[in-house]
Amino acid sequence: MALKLYGAPMSTCTSRVLTCLHEKDLDFELVLVDLFAGEHKQPPFLAKNPFGQIPALEDDDLTVFESRAITSYVAEKFKETGYDLTRHQNIKEAALVKVWTEVESQQFHPAIAPIIFQFFVAPLQGNSPDQTIIDANLEKLGKVLDIYEAKLTSTKYLAGDFYSLADLHHLPYAYYLMKTPAASVVNERPHVKAWWEDISTRPAFKKVAEGMNFGEK
Amino acid sequence: MALKLYGAPMSTCTSRVLTCLHEKDLDFELVLVDLFAGEHKQPPFLAKNPFGQIPALEDDDLTVFESRAITSYVAEKFKETGYDLTRHQNIKEAALVKVWTEVESQQFHPAIAPIIFQFFVAPLQGNSPDQTIIDANLEKLGKVLDIYEAKLTSTKYLAGDFYSLADLHHLPYAYYLMKTPAASVVNERPHVKAWWEDISTRPAFKKVAEGMNFGEK
Ligand SMILES: N[C@@H](CCC(=O)N[C@@H](CS)C(=O)NCC(=O)O)C(=O)O
Ligand SMILES: N[C@@H](CCC(=O)N[C@@H](CS)C(=O)NCC(=O)O)C(=O)O
Repeated sequence: MALKLYGAPMSTCTSRVLTCLHEKDLDFELVLVDLFAGEHKQPPFLAKNPFGQIPALEDDDLTVFESRAITSYVAEKFKETGYDLTRHQNIKEAALVKVWTEVESQQFHPAIAPIIFQFFVAPLQGNSPDQTIIDANLEKLGKVLDIYEAKLTSTKYLAGDFYSLADLHHLPYAYYLMKTPAASVVNERPHVKAWWEDISTRPAFKKVAEGMNFGEK
Repeated sequence: MALKLYGAPMSTCTSRVLTCLHEKDLDFELVLVDLFAGEHKQPPFLAKNPFGQIPALEDDDLTVFESRAITSYVAEKFKETGYDLTRHQNIKEAALVKVWTEVESQQFHPAIAPIIFQFFVAPLQGNSPDQTIIDANLEKLGKVLDIYEAKLTSTKYLAGDFYSLADLHHLPYAYYLMKTPAASVVNERPHVKAWWEDISTRPAFKKVAEGMNFGEK
């Protein structure tokens, strides 16, 4: 088998890549990296990703890391396989996929990541969630989602009337968010809520979500 | 003229795109957006980028925003023009360009952005730079640059022995950093320093740097 993904199913960044691999109908092997045992900071994994973070993808002798670089590589290399995530046949639509993929990375992610950290990671480290950090970032996230709400009144998905990598990249963090009281930031915005319900029930993601039980008892 | 870039020469994100346009030898018109007058929060600009941030690029009837989406769009649409920033003829090299472009976005940028904010933006807002924030982020940045130092001992540029979009994306923030006492974080690492001296003296960036006098008297 050519594709090997190093990661863990509960990890948001691994899930992002897993969802992409399923959308593309690709065969791959998932090689578990044990974060609790610190395997990601040991030389064998550091040789794949010097930043010591999952996931990393091996495609024969090529190693790719950073979840968004992996999905973009997979979507492009296998553009004729499975679902078309990048609209590669239409340069304008492809450009809008890039725009909203960057919006996830630069606007959505910096706001949602600290919220997920407080709700799920802090407790594992023996701390209770810091409500001040949660509130400050919820306010930031709400402003981002106000813009999504406006956009989603005119197009069904972020980049246009087609599901794309731009939507997909949101799934893992939003999935964990929806398990917390902060889910209201999505539920209070009808178009964002409908978009979330649509993208989170695609078969590719439903398969991945089964493994996402981070921090749950 | 087909390409219109809305932005300001002193803005880091505008400079990232300007550098790319020069590397690609493209004709374009720079349309100034006056941040101090709040022009980026007015309806005409919000119609181009609903997040109200510069830059935005118009290519006939297509509008692209988010600096890294713009450079990626330009590099791909004009792949046969000027310098090849994405190694589009070699899928493995192209994948490594994607990886290190994401490293800039996810590892380098979150560490350097607060430092530049404290040194250059805080004073404009009547605050003195917060040394605690600077120090915490310098420590983060140092760890990222340790990994760059190791990488740059084996290849001349981040993605390999070729200058690419991955290197280019670092230029604007690093340029401002090098004007502060925090420049030592680069100068103390010989391979990072040599890389910086190389990439910052390319003609395309030297032209852009002339307009980057943010916060200077
Ligand atoms: N920007 C990276 C982030 C990767 C990341 O943060 N991975 C987490 C798991 S979701 C990890 O390995 N954490 C352990 C650590 O950072 O030490 C990506 O998108 O792949
Ligand atoms: N992620 C965006 C960031 C754009 C950005 O922060 N632009 C700044 C100027 S460098 C801006 O417009 N600031 C005004 C504001 O955010 O209100 C990009 O890369 O284009």
